[in-house]
Amino acid sequence: MQEGLLIVLSGPAGSGKGTVSQLLLRSPEFAFSVSATTRAPRPGEVDGVNYHFISVADFEERIRRGELLEYTNYCGNYYGTLRSEAEAILAGGRNLLLEIEVEGAANIRRLRPDAVLIMLLPPSFSAQEKRLRGRGTETEEKIRARLARSRAELDCLHLYDYMVLNRDNGAEDCAEDVRAIVRAERCAVRRHPGAAAAFFEN
Amino acid sequence: MQEGLLIVLSGPAGSGKGTVSQLLLRSPEFAFSVSATTRAPRPGEVDGVNYHFISVADFEERIRRGELLEYTNYCGNYYGTLRSEAEAILAGGRNLLLEIEVEGAANIRRLRPDAVLIMLLPPSFSAQEKRLRGRGTETEEKIRARLARSRAELDCLHLYDYMVLNRDNGAEDCAEDVRAIVRAERCAVRRHPGAAAAFFEN
Repeated sequence: MQEGLLIVLSGPAGSGKGTVSQLLLRSPEFAFSVSATTRAPRPGEVDGVNYHFISVADFEERIRRGELLEYTNYCGNYYGTLRSEAEAILAGGRNLLLEIEVEGAANIRRLRPDAVLIMLLPPSFSAQEKRLRGRGTETEEKIRARLARSRAELDCLHLYDYMVLNRDNGAEDCAEDVRAIVRAERCAVRRHPGAAAAFFEN
Repeated sequence: MQEGLLIVLSGPAGSGKGTVSQLLLRSPEFAFSVSATTRAPRPGEVDGVNYHFISVADFEERIRRGELLEYTNYCGNYYGTLRSEAEAILAGGRNLLLEIEVEGAANIRRLRPDAVLIMLLPPSFSAQEKRLRGRGTETEEKIRARLARSRAELDCLHLYDYMVLNRDNGAEDCAEDVRAIVRAERCAVRRHPGAAAAFFEN
Protein backbone atom coordinates (compact mmCIF):
# COMPACT_ATOMS: atom_id res chain seq x y z
CA MET A 1 0.00 0.00 0.00
CA GLN A 2 1.24 3.51 -0.83
CA GLU A 3 1.99 5.47 2.32
CA GLY A 4 -0.15 8.55 2.96
CA LEU A 5 1.25 12.06 2.72
CA LEU A 6 2.05 14.11 5.78
CA ILE A 7 0.29 17.43 5.22
CA VAL A 8 1.09 20.36 7.48
CA LEU A 9 -1.55 23.09 7.48
CA SER A 10 -0.56 26.34 9.18
CA GLY A 11 -2.00 29.80 9.07
CA PRO A 12 -2.41 32.94 11.15
CA ALA A 13 -5.31 33.07 13.57
CA GLY A 14 -8.41 33.92 11.57
CA SER A 15 -7.14 32.36 8.34
CA GLY A 16 -9.89 29.77 8.50
CA LYS A 17 -7.65 26.72 8.72
CA GLY A 18 -10.03 25.00 11.14
CA THR A 19 -12.90 25.21 8.63
CA VAL A 20 -10.69 24.05 5.76
CA SER A 21 -9.48 21.09 7.82
CA GLN A 22 -13.04 20.08 8.62
CA LEU A 23 -13.96 20.15 4.92
CA LEU A 24 -10.97 17.98 4.03
CA LEU A 25 -11.67 15.51 6.80
CA ARG A 26 -15.08 14.74 5.29
CA SER A 27 -13.18 12.49 2.89
CA PRO A 28 -11.71 9.21 4.18
CA GLU A 29 -8.53 10.06 2.20
CA PHE A 30 -7.64 12.49 4.98
CA ALA A 31 -7.20 11.82 8.65
CA PHE A 32 -6.06 13.88 11.57
CA SER A 33 -4.09 12.89 14.60
CA VAL A 34 -5.38 14.14 17.90
CA SER A 35 -2.73 16.48 19.34
CA ALA A 36 -1.51 16.37 22.87
CA THR A 37 -1.62 19.65 24.81
CA THR A 38 -1.07 20.96 28.30
CA ARG A 39 -3.51 23.85 27.93
CA ALA A 40 -6.85 23.76 29.75
CA PRO A 41 -9.84 22.49 27.74
CA ARG A 42 -12.14 25.22 26.39
CA PRO A 43 -15.87 24.85 26.98
CA GLY A 44 -17.14 21.99 24.85
CA GLU A 45 -13.74 20.45 24.12
CA VAL A 46 -13.50 16.74 24.78
CA ASP A 47 -10.37 14.89 25.91
CA GLY A 48 -9.19 12.41 23.27
CA VAL A 49 -11.38 14.07 20.62
CA ASN A 50 -10.23 17.69 20.37
CA TYR A 51 -6.93 17.09 22.16
CA HIS A 52 -5.24 14.69 24.50
CA PHE A 53 -5.20 16.98 27.52
CA ILE A 54 -2.16 15.97 29.56
CA SER A 55 -0.06 17.46 32.34
CA VAL A 56 3.16 19.40 31.81
CA ALA A 57 5.10 16.63 33.60
CA ASP A 58 3.61 13.96 31.32
CA PHE A 59 4.27 16.06 28.19
CA GLU A 60 7.89 16.68 29.14
CA GLU A 61 8.41 12.99 29.89
CA ARG A 62 7.10 12.13 26.40
CA ILE A 63 9.47 14.71 24.85
CA ARG A 64 12.36 13.00 26.63
CA ARG A 65 11.23 9.60 25.32
CA GLY A 66 11.10 10.92 21.74
CA GLU A 67 7.41 10.18 21.48
CA LEU A 68 6.54 13.48 19.78
CA LEU A 69 6.80 13.98 16.04
CA GLU A 70 6.65 17.71 16.66
CA TYR A 71 5.79 19.97 19.52
CA THR A 72 5.81 23.62 20.39
CA ASN A 73 5.21 25.82 23.37
CA TYR A 74 2.69 28.53 22.56
CA CYS A 75 1.47 31.10 25.08
CA GLY A 76 2.84 28.97 27.89
CA ASN A 77 1.25 25.69 26.80
CA TYR A 78 2.70 22.67 25.03
CA TYR A 79 1.08 21.34 21.85
CA GLY A 80 2.39 18.29 20.00
CA THR A 81 1.76 15.30 17.78
CA LEU A 82 2.31 11.77 19.06
CA ARG A 83 4.66 9.98 16.69
CA SER A 84 2.99 6.57 17.10
CA GLU A 85 -0.43 7.93 16.20
CA ALA A 86 0.88 9.81 13.14
CA GLU A 87 2.86 6.87 11.77
CA ALA A 88 -0.04 4.44 12.08
CA ILE A 89 -2.24 6.75 9.98
CA LEU A 90 0.40 7.19 7.24
CA ALA A 91 1.17 3.46 7.10
CA GLY A 92 -2.55 2.87 6.56
CA GLY A 93 -2.36 4.92 3.35
CA ARG A 94 -4.30 7.93 4.57
CA ASN A 95 -3.04 11.50 4.31
CA LEU A 96 -2.38 12.90 7.75
CA LEU A 97 -3.47 16.49 8.21
CA LEU A 98 -1.54 18.31 10.92
CA GLU A 99 -2.86 21.71 11.86
CA ILE A 100 0.19 23.19 13.54
CA GLU A 101 2.16 26.34 14.25
CA VAL A 102 5.20 27.55 12.35
CA GLU A 103 7.73 26.13 14.85
CA GLY A 104 6.14 22.70 14.63
CA ALA A 105 6.15 22.92 10.85
CA ALA A 106 9.88 23.65 10.87
CA ASN A 107 10.45 20.58 13.07
CA ILE A 108 8.38 18.42 10.72
CA ARG A 109 10.39 19.66 7.74
CA ARG A 110 13.56 18.53 9.49
CA LEU A 111 12.25 15.14 10.67
CA ARG A 112 10.18 14.33 7.57
CA PRO A 113 11.57 16.10 4.49
CA ASP A 114 8.79 14.45 2.45
CA ALA A 115 6.09 16.39 4.35
CA VAL A 116 4.00 18.89 2.39
CA LEU A 117 3.86 22.28 4.13
CA ILE A 118 0.91 24.52 3.33
CA MET A 119 0.19 27.95 4.76
CA LEU A 120 -3.36 29.21 4.63
CA LEU A 121 -3.67 32.99 4.33
CA PRO A 122 -6.54 35.42 4.76
CA PRO A 123 -6.73 37.81 1.80
CA SER A 124 -4.99 40.58 3.79
CA PHE A 125 -3.93 41.71 7.23
CA SER A 126 -6.99 43.93 7.66
CA ALA A 127 -9.32 41.09 6.66
CA GLN A 128 -7.61 38.86 9.19
CA GLU A 129 -8.03 41.44 11.97
CA LYS A 130 -11.71 41.82 11.10
CA ARG A 131 -12.26 38.06 11.14
CA LEU A 132 -10.51 37.74 14.48
CA ARG A 133 -12.53 40.53 16.12
CA GLY A 134 -15.72 39.14 14.60
CA ARG A 135 -15.31 36.02 16.72
CA GLY A 136 -15.91 38.12 19.85
CA THR A 137 -14.36 35.42 22.04
CA GLU A 138 -11.11 37.09 23.03
CA THR A 139 -9.88 40.19 24.84
CA GLU A 140 -8.33 43.13 22.99
CA GLU A 141 -4.97 42.26 24.52
CA LYS A 142 -5.11 38.70 23.25
CA ILE A 143 -6.20 39.87 19.81
CA ARG A 144 -3.20 42.21 19.62
CA ALA A 145 -0.87 39.39 20.68
CA ARG A 146 -2.34 37.13 17.99
CA LEU A 147 -1.94 39.81 15.32
CA ALA A 148 1.71 40.34 16.26
CA ARG A 149 2.12 36.59 16.10
CA SER A 150 0.60 36.54 12.60
CA ARG A 151 3.28 38.91 11.37
CA ALA A 152 5.95 36.59 12.75
CA GLU A 153 4.26 33.60 11.09
CA LEU A 154 4.14 35.33 7.73
CA ASP A 155 7.87 35.88 8.00
CA CYS A 156 8.19 32.07 7.86
CA LEU A 157 6.21 31.69 4.64
CA HIS A 158 9.42 30.81 2.78
CA LEU A 159 9.65 27.57 4.81
CA TYR A 160 6.41 26.38 3.22
CA ASP A 161 5.84 24.62 -0.09
CA TYR A 162 2.44 26.10 -0.82
CA MET A 163 0.30 29.08 0.14
CA VAL A 164 -3.45 28.92 -0.14
CA LEU A 165 -5.37 32.17 -0.14
CA ASN A 166 -8.66 32.12 1.75
CA ARG A 167 -10.86 34.67 0.04
CA ASP A 168 -14.15 35.61 1.69
CA ASN A 169 -16.37 32.54 1.98
CA GLY A 170 -13.67 30.61 0.19
CA ALA A 171 -13.10 27.69 2.58
CA GLU A 172 -14.34 25.10 0.06
CA ASP A 173 -12.11 26.66 -2.59
CA CYS A 174 -9.15 26.37 -0.20
CA ALA A 175 -10.00 22.74 0.52
CA GLU A 176 -10.04 22.10 -3.24
CA ASP A 177 -6.59 23.71 -3.50
CA VAL A 178 -5.30 21.34 -0.82
CA ARG A 179 -6.84 18.32 -2.59
CA ALA A 180 -5.13 19.42 -5.83
CA ILE A 181 -1.82 19.82 -3.98
CA VAL A 182 -2.11 16.28 -2.61
CA ARG A 183 -2.97 14.87 -6.05
CA ALA A 184 -0.05 16.74 -7.64
CA GLU A 185 2.41 15.71 -4.93
CA ARG A 186 1.51 12.07 -5.52
CA CYS A 187 2.70 12.57 -9.11
CA ALA A 188 5.98 14.26 -8.13
CA VAL A 189 8.90 12.42 -9.75
CA ARG A 190 11.00 12.83 -6.59
CA ARG A 191 8.46 10.66 -4.74
CA HIS A 192 8.99 7.77 -7.20
CA PRO A 193 12.77 7.18 -7.27
CA GLY A 194 12.50 3.72 -8.88
CA ALA A 195 9.82 4.56 -11.45
CA ALA A 196 11.90 4.43 -14.65
CA ALA A 197 13.29 0.99 -13.76
CA ALA A 198 9.88 -0.35 -12.73
CA PHE A 199 8.45 0.69 -16.09
CA PHE A 200 10.58 -1.91 -17.88
CA GLU A 201 10.18 -4.65 -15.30
CA ASN A 202 6.39 -4.88 -15.47
CA MET B 1 -3.26 39.61 -14.98
CA GLN B 2 -1.41 36.55 -13.67
CA GLU B 3 0.77 35.01 -16.36
CA GLY B 4 -0.12 31.50 -17.50
CA LEU B 5 2.02 28.48 -16.69
CA LEU B 6 4.25 26.88 -19.27
CA ILE B 7 3.38 23.17 -19.14
CA VAL B 8 5.58 20.67 -20.93
CA LEU B 9 3.93 17.33 -21.63
CA SER B 10 6.23 14.57 -22.82
CA GLY B 11 5.81 10.84 -23.00
CA PRO B 12 6.93 7.81 -24.98
CA ALA B 13 5.05 6.99 -28.18
CA GLY B 14 1.83 5.24 -27.19
CA SER B 15 1.60 6.94 -23.78
CA GLY B 16 -1.58 8.70 -24.86
CA LYS B 17 -0.29 12.26 -24.51
CA GLY B 18 -2.17 13.37 -27.60
CA THR B 19 -5.50 12.27 -26.10
CA VAL B 20 -4.68 13.84 -22.74
CA SER B 21 -3.75 17.13 -24.43
CA GLN B 22 -7.03 17.15 -26.34
CA LEU B 23 -8.97 16.67 -23.09
CA LEU B 24 -7.10 19.53 -21.42
CA LEU B 25 -7.57 21.84 -24.39
CA ARG B 26 -11.35 21.59 -24.04
CA SER B 27 -10.96 24.16 -21.24
CA PRO B 28 -10.13 27.77 -22.16
CA GLU B 29 -7.60 27.74 -19.29
CA PHE B 30 -5.28 25.76 -21.54
CA ALA B 31 -3.94 26.70 -24.93
CA PHE B 32 -1.44 25.17 -27.28
CA SER B 33 1.00 26.82 -29.58
CA VAL B 34 1.18 25.43 -33.07
CA SER B 35 4.68 23.97 -33.52
CA ALA B 36 6.84 24.59 -36.52
CA THR B 37 8.24 21.51 -38.27
CA THR B 38 10.16 20.56 -41.37
CA ARG B 39 8.58 17.11 -41.66
CA ALA B 40 6.08 16.39 -44.42
CA PRO B 41 2.39 16.71 -43.48
CA ARG B 42 0.60 13.39 -42.77
CA PRO B 43 -2.71 12.80 -44.51
CA GLY B 44 -5.31 15.10 -43.00
CA GLU B 45 -2.83 17.44 -41.31
CA VAL B 46 -3.41 21.11 -42.03
CA ASP B 47 -0.71 23.78 -42.19
CA GLY B 48 -1.13 26.35 -39.41
CA VAL B 49 -3.47 24.05 -37.49
CA ASN B 50 -1.51 20.85 -36.77
CA TYR B 51 1.88 22.39 -37.47
CA HIS B 52 3.48 25.27 -39.27
CA PHE B 53 5.08 23.23 -42.05
CA ILE B 54 8.20 25.13 -43.11
CA SER B 55 11.38 24.40 -45.03
CA VAL B 56 14.68 23.38 -43.46
CA ALA B 57 16.25 26.65 -44.66
CA ASP B 58 13.46 28.70 -43.06
CA PHE B 59 13.66 26.71 -39.80
CA GLU B 60 17.43 27.13 -39.56
CA GLU B 61 17.13 30.85 -40.25
CA ARG B 62 14.64 31.14 -37.38
CA ILE B 63 17.01 29.23 -35.09
CA ARG B 64 19.73 31.75 -35.93
CA ARG B 65 17.38 34.64 -35.19
CA GLY B 66 16.53 33.15 -31.76
CA GLU B 67 12.87 32.87 -32.68
CA LEU B 68 12.45 29.37 -31.21
CA LEU B 69 11.67 28.76 -27.55
CA GLU B 70 12.76 25.16 -28.03
CA TYR B 71 13.45 22.92 -30.96
CA THR B 72 14.72 19.44 -31.61
CA ASN B 73 15.68 17.31 -34.55
CA TYR B 74 13.86 14.00 -34.43
CA CYS B 75 14.23 11.32 -37.12
CA GLY B 76 15.76 13.88 -39.45
CA ASN B 77 13.08 16.55 -39.05
CA TYR B 78 13.04 19.76 -37.03
CA TYR B 79 10.24 20.45 -34.56
CA GLY B 80 10.04 23.63 -32.54
CA THR B 81 7.98 26.24 -30.71
CA LEU B 82 7.92 29.84 -31.90
CA ARG B 83 8.85 32.08 -28.99
CA SER B 84 6.53 34.91 -30.03
CA GLU B 85 3.49 32.63 -30.17
CA ALA B 86 4.26 31.04 -26.78
CA GLU B 87 4.83 34.33 -24.99
CA ALA B 88 1.64 35.89 -26.29
CA ILE B 89 -0.38 32.97 -24.87
CA LEU B 90 1.31 33.14 -21.44
CA ALA B 91 0.95 36.93 -21.21
CA GLY B 92 -2.78 36.46 -21.87
CA GLY B 93 -3.03 34.38 -18.68
CA ARG B 94 -3.58 31.02 -20.33
CA ASN B 95 -1.55 27.92 -19.54
CA LEU B 96 0.48 26.93 -22.55
CA LEU B 97 0.61 23.20 -23.17
CA LEU B 98 3.68 22.09 -25.10
CA GLU B 99 3.68 18.49 -26.26
CA ILE B 100 7.39 17.99 -26.88
CA GLU B 101 10.25 15.53 -26.81
CA VAL B 102 12.78 15.12 -24.02
CA GLU B 103 15.46 17.29 -25.68
CA GLY B 104 13.00 20.14 -26.10
CA ALA B 105 11.92 19.76 -22.48
CA ALA B 106 15.53 20.07 -21.33
CA ASN B 107 15.88 23.27 -23.37
CA ILE B 108 12.70 24.67 -21.87
CA ARG B 109 13.95 23.90 -18.37
CA ARG B 110 17.08 25.93 -19.11
CA LEU B 111 15.31 28.89 -20.76
CA ARG B 112 12.26 28.94 -18.49
CA PRO B 113 13.07 27.48 -15.04
CA ASP B 114 9.47 28.22 -14.05
CA ALA B 115 8.11 25.70 -16.59
CA VAL B 116 6.29 22.63 -15.26
CA LEU B 117 7.62 19.43 -16.82
CA ILE B 118 5.29 16.44 -16.87
CA MET B 119 6.00 13.01 -18.32
CA LEU B 120 3.06 10.83 -19.22
CA LEU B 121 3.72 7.10 -18.89
CA PRO B 122 1.89 4.02 -20.08
CA PRO B 123 1.45 1.51 -17.22
CA SER B 124 4.38 -0.60 -18.44
CA PHE B 125 6.72 -1.22 -21.34
CA SER B 126 4.67 -4.18 -22.61
CA ALA B 127 1.46 -2.13 -22.50
CA GLN B 128 3.20 0.59 -24.46
CA GLU B 129 4.37 -1.85 -27.13
CA LYS B 130 0.86 -3.27 -27.44
CA ARG B 131 -0.66 0.20 -27.78
CA LEU B 132 1.87 1.15 -30.42
CA ARG B 133 1.27 -2.01 -32.51
CA GLY B 134 -2.47 -1.58 -32.08
CA ARG B 135 -2.30 1.63 -34.09
CA GLY B 136 -1.29 -0.40 -37.15
CA THR B 137 0.03 2.69 -38.91
CA GLU B 138 3.78 2.01 -38.78
CA THR B 139 6.29 -0.56 -40.02
CA GLU B 140 7.94 -3.04 -37.66
CA GLU B 141 11.23 -1.20 -38.12
CA LYS B 142 9.72 2.11 -37.09
CA ILE B 143 8.00 0.51 -34.10
CA ARG B 144 11.33 -0.91 -32.91
CA ALA B 145 12.99 2.50 -33.32
CA ARG B 146 10.20 4.11 -31.28
CA LEU B 147 10.49 1.55 -28.51
CA ALA B 148 14.26 2.06 -28.29
CA ARG B 149 13.55 5.78 -28.14
CA SER B 150 11.08 5.24 -25.27
CA ARG B 151 13.81 3.64 -23.19
CA ALA B 152 16.02 6.66 -23.79
CA GLU B 153 13.16 8.99 -22.85
CA LEU B 154 12.51 7.14 -19.59
CA ASP B 155 16.17 7.64 -18.71
CA CYS B 156 15.39 11.38 -18.62
CA LEU B 157 12.49 11.06 -16.19
CA HIS B 158 14.60 12.70 -13.46
CA LEU B 159 14.55 15.97 -15.47
CA TYR B 160 10.78 16.14 -15.00
CA ASP B 161 8.76 17.53 -12.10
CA TYR B 162 5.84 15.15 -12.38
CA MET B 163 5.00 11.75 -13.82
CA VAL B 164 1.44 10.85 -14.71
CA LEU B 165 0.58 7.20 -15.18
CA ASN B 166 -1.86 6.47 -17.98
CA ARG B 167 -3.69 3.32 -16.94
CA ASP B 168 -5.93 1.61 -19.49
CA ASN B 169 -8.70 3.96 -20.58
CA GLY B 170 -7.33 6.47 -18.09
CA ALA B 171 -6.87 9.54 -20.29
CA GLU B 172 -9.47 11.58 -18.38
CA ASP B 173 -7.82 10.57 -15.12
CA CYS B 174 -4.47 11.76 -16.50
CA ALA B 175 -6.01 15.06 -17.59
CA GLU B 176 -7.36 15.48 -14.06
CA ASP B 177 -3.87 14.85 -12.68
CA VAL B 178 -2.52 17.61 -14.93
CA ARG B 179 -5.28 20.00 -13.85
CA ALA B 180 -4.41 19.29 -10.20
CA ILE B 181 -0.72 19.87 -10.92
CA VAL B 182 -1.53 23.25 -12.46
CA ARG B 183 -3.74 24.22 -9.52
CA ALA B 184 -1.05 23.16 -7.04
CA GLU B 185 1.74 24.93 -8.92
CA ARG B 186 -0.25 28.16 -8.81
CA CYS B 187 -0.13 27.85 -5.00
CA ALA B 188 3.62 27.17 -4.86
CA VAL B 189 5.29 29.66 -2.51
CA ARG B 190 8.30 30.00 -4.85
CA ARG B 191 5.93 31.45 -7.48
CA HIS B 192 4.88 34.27 -5.10
CA PRO B 193 8.13 35.86 -3.91
CA GLY B 194 6.47 39.05 -2.62
CA ALA B 195 3.48 37.41 -0.97
CA ALA B 196 4.36 37.96 2.70
CA ALA B 197 4.98 41.68 2.13
CA ALA B 198 1.82 42.09 0.04
CA PHE B 199 -0.22 40.55 2.85
CA PHE B 200 0.49 43.54 5.08
CA GLU B 201 0.16 46.18 2.39
CA ASN B 202 -3.39 45.38 1.34
